[in-house]
Amino acid sequence: MPHGNPVLEPPDEKTERLAEVLRKIGEGFRKADSYVLVSPHNVRMSDHLGVVMAEHLVSWLGFEGKELPGEWETDRDLAGKIYEKAKAEGIPVVDLNFAAMSGEYSRWPLSWGELIPLQFLEKRPLVLITPSRGVSRETLIRFGEVLSEVLEKDAKKIALIISADHGHGHDENGPYGYVPESEEYDRLVMEIIKENRLERLLEIPEELVRKALVDSYWQLLVLHGILKKVPMEIREAAYACPTYFGMAGALWMR
Amino acid sequence: MPHGNPVLEPPDEKTERLAEVLRKIGEGFRKADSYVLVSPHNVRMSDHLGVVMAEHLVSWLGFEGKELPGEWETDRDLAGKIYEKAKAEGIPVVDLNFAAMSGEYSRWPLSWGELIPLQFLEKRPLVLITPSRGVSRETLIRFGEVLSEVLEKDAKKIALIISADHGHGHDENGPYGYVPESEEYDRLVMEIIKENRLERLLEIPEELVRKALVDSYWQLLVLHGILKKVPMEIREAAYACPTYFGMAGALWMR
Repeated sequence: MPHGNPVLEPPDEKTERLAEVLRKIGEGFRKADSYVLVSPHNVRMSDHLGVVMAEHLVSWLGFEGKELPGEWETDRDLAGKIYEKAKAEGIPVVDLNFAAMSGEYSRWPLSWGELIPLQFLEKRPLVLITPSRGVSRETLIRFGEVLSEVLEKDAKKIALIISADHGHGHDENGPYGYVPESEEYDRLVMEIIKENRLERLLEIPEELVRKALVDSYWQLLVLHGILKKVPMEIREAAYACPTYFGMAGALWMR
Repeated sequence: MPHGNPVLEPPDEKTERLAEVLRKIGEGFRKADSYVLVSPHNVRMSDHLGVVMAEHLVSWLGFEGKELPGEWETDRDLAGKIYEKAKAEGIPVVDLNFAAMSGEYSRWPLSWGELIPLQFLEKRPLVLITPSRGVSRETLIRFGEVLSEVLEKDAKKIALIISADHGHGHDENGPYGYVPESEEYDRLVMEIIKENRLERLLEIPEELVRKALVDSYWQLLVLHGILKKVPMEIREAAYACPTYFGMAGALWMR
């Protein structure tokens, strides 16, 4: 799911089509008991992934003044299992709590990276996970595999949400100007998604990822790790680029 | 420095005396260019220390409704040096950013653990560091030593603030009831501080630390590491326990 403000009030047909896919994701995930949400705009650590253990997830930071108030609860049982398993498997990961270990003061701030996807999803307990750009591709994929093992063992129905936007250099008047690699990366990623062949992410050179100015690649590797262990069908996919950054929505189901 | 609300409006003479020491700390640190603030009520990770790299430090969470609005800036140059050096020395530490790597969206939430000490200090750029209870005593002391090396090398004048409260079981009507170990721990810690012999912290058994319900021990070990490398004189010390938890203020200067 993307996390750009335009999906909330689509300014054109393509973005409207993308928003429709996001609503379908919401419908598809209606039976889920909990969500696992991987977001690139929460805590950012150079070389560790994070699993938020704080009890209450509280809206804190909107983008360009778009405030989306709300509070969600962490599925602490599931969060603990994911953290413990990942740690036991040697993944560089930390558990993240804030202020107090439990109770009303155990809180965690949310940004647009989580809040925008959550607008399309019924409220459920969730586990917030943060990726990292400084760990190897193999480690991110391995984390996805480990995550899938934990989710598969759990008696609950759990939906996984990957929050991601793609190239940020689509508009010469945008904050990053026009960067041809953004188009190239977005085209490739949409091809990979529609073919449901995420192993092809490994064909994308580091340099292209860097130049294309994306915040999607690392979470997509986690998704690749999940899909390796638990193959799913791709049901929906849409792309739009109403401003300077590319947004994609896609739904996989068992 | 303590982080309990009562120091803001002292209800008795002992707390007033403690608040006076806190004001003296503020005066003593007036010439500092930057602060390093170690707080137990920000991010809490089981087995990693944290160095906040986010640019803007924003008031977020008061205790018992005591809101203390304000915004501080991170000394990112110093924060980066501390993180890099600690990592190079093999300390389990992560760098913490939020939402964006820099600019207006690179923000970090503050709790009462930071906000109360900051009320007594003139505004300066600061580096926020989080301790961890799951790393060894030796690692915490070693981190203090490494920290002191970075601070000593820096051309800036830097003041270190350890935010800490002590036993939380001083009142049978308090949230944790009456726990005799809280009194024992607090007495010991005040003795150690007044004698300026922080190496004696290592004499305190793990069990006493645990039973006394403190949030001070781990940061005090960091302070011990600092004082091992950079001996300082103790100038002021005061203790008060107006409610259920013990608070201490102490000032060390070169």
